[in-house]
Amino acid sequence: MRRLLLISSSRVHGSGFLEFCREAISEHFAGVDEVLFVPYALADRHEYEALVADALEPTGIKIRSIHHADDPLEAINGAQGIFVGGGNSFRLLKTLYDLDLIGPIREAALRGVPYMGSSAGTNMACPTIRTTNDMPIVEPPSLDALKLIPFQINPHYLDADPNSSHKGETRMQRLQEYLEENSVPVVGLREGSWLEIAGETCWLRGNKDMILFRQGIDAVEINTGSDVSFLLMPK
Amino acid sequence: MRRLLLISSSRVHGSGFLEFCREAISEHFAGVDEVLFVPYALADRHEYEALVADALEPTGIKIRSIHHADDPLEAINGAQGIFVGGGNSFRLLKTLYDLDLIGPIREAALRGVPYMGSSAGTNMACPTIRTTNDMPIVEPPSLDALKLIPFQINPHYLDADPNSSHKGETRMQRLQEYLEENSVPVVGLREGSWLEIAGETCWLRGNKDMILFRQGIDAVEINTGSDVSFLLMPK
Repeated sequence: MRRLLLISSSRVHGSGFLEFCREAISEHFAGVDEVLFVPYALADRHEYEALVADALEPTGIKIRSIHHADDPLEAINGAQGIFVGGGNSFRLLKTLYDLDLIGPIREAALRGVPYMGSSAGTNMACPTIRTTNDMPIVEPPSLDALKLIPFQINPHYLDADPNSSHKGETRMQRLQEYLEENSVPVVGLREGSWLEIAGETCWLRGNKDMILFRQGIDAVEINTGSDVSFLLMPK
Repeated sequence: MRRLLLISSSRVHGSGFLEFCREAISEHFAGVDEVLFVPYALADRHEYEALVADALEPTGIKIRSIHHADDPLEAINGAQGIFVGGGNSFRLLKTLYDLDLIGPIREAALRGVPYMGSSAGTNMACPTIRTTNDMPIVEPPSLDALKLIPFQINPHYLDADPNSSHKGETRMQRLQEYLEENSVPVVGLREGSWLEIAGETCWLRGNKDMILFRQGIDAVEINTGSDVSFLLMPK
């Protein structure tokens, strides 16, 4: 049974790195001695590992980054828990393809190894990375991702600033363009919120409501604390 | 001899669509009876054509959108001038690949057919679309673009808002991540500015300075009105 903790962002205004969701992380990884950390979304893997280890130190969760492993596949196959950190989604996905880790991480998560993603790590859990905010700084062989859930998430979802004079597309416009080309629903997940998925149940947690985009229907706001398991049902 | 007008954005705060650069457009397409418009970055091609035709009506430039052509390749090969409009860069690039138009547009521009791009159309002129701001809503077969210039442009370049509480990457951070993975320089082109390229000369025009990002060097601001032909020189 899949157990996924999919966080919008590791950083939230006015709080330390992963601090706002520390309790949820503790519960998610209860009974896990050591979590395998996947740092590939950032360039400096050592520094990233230290940041995460420090942030989770109060929970007692030990962190070991996969970049230390001689055999990353073996590390995935032996992991008791997996945390895929944020950064650039294209760099992360390309590295997972380069190391042939897409299938193994997917299989681990589907057989019940607790998976946690933040930002780019949350994008990874989706069918594709077509709703990432990131710049395509490298070219993965495909935009297909881990497909742990049947819907898309847009992390760091941002409401338009009515006072902005900038003419680039708003986040809402970008996701509407996504729906011009794709029929998969998208959850706009605001910073400070996350989805908790266990098998066929899915709950929205954290301090922000989410916004749900579907083809041919107006976007709707859904309150935090809601049961959103319908997102997991086959269409 | 290539003649390129590469605009950051068609819309600028406080001005109509393409209004702020209308004079430059007139000069760029002087002597051209009809400009072939490439609308593929947006979903509604008819509406887009009408918008552009209206915006350029005061210049006397006639617009004909390529989506009317039975044979798009023939339309490119017969074009006196080409304008590739903004929208989603991934959708635009994928459509150009699907229609086998990458080579023909490149060849037309390199033999001297005046090329104008705005936003996504400016991304197209670069070696790749790796510095686009757009969401990867569709998957082109490659991120390689028209390669009309040897450097990258980031259109709609946006300075960080010091008062923002949002934790997504700033534009500068995204471009620094690009340079972690690529050695090609990037021009951050602010809304209201454009590059005029004729053969081996390149000038920055419009009402905003640009910012130049290069690997291993601090980013530098360059005043509008500057000769930036050095960007075209081989490394």
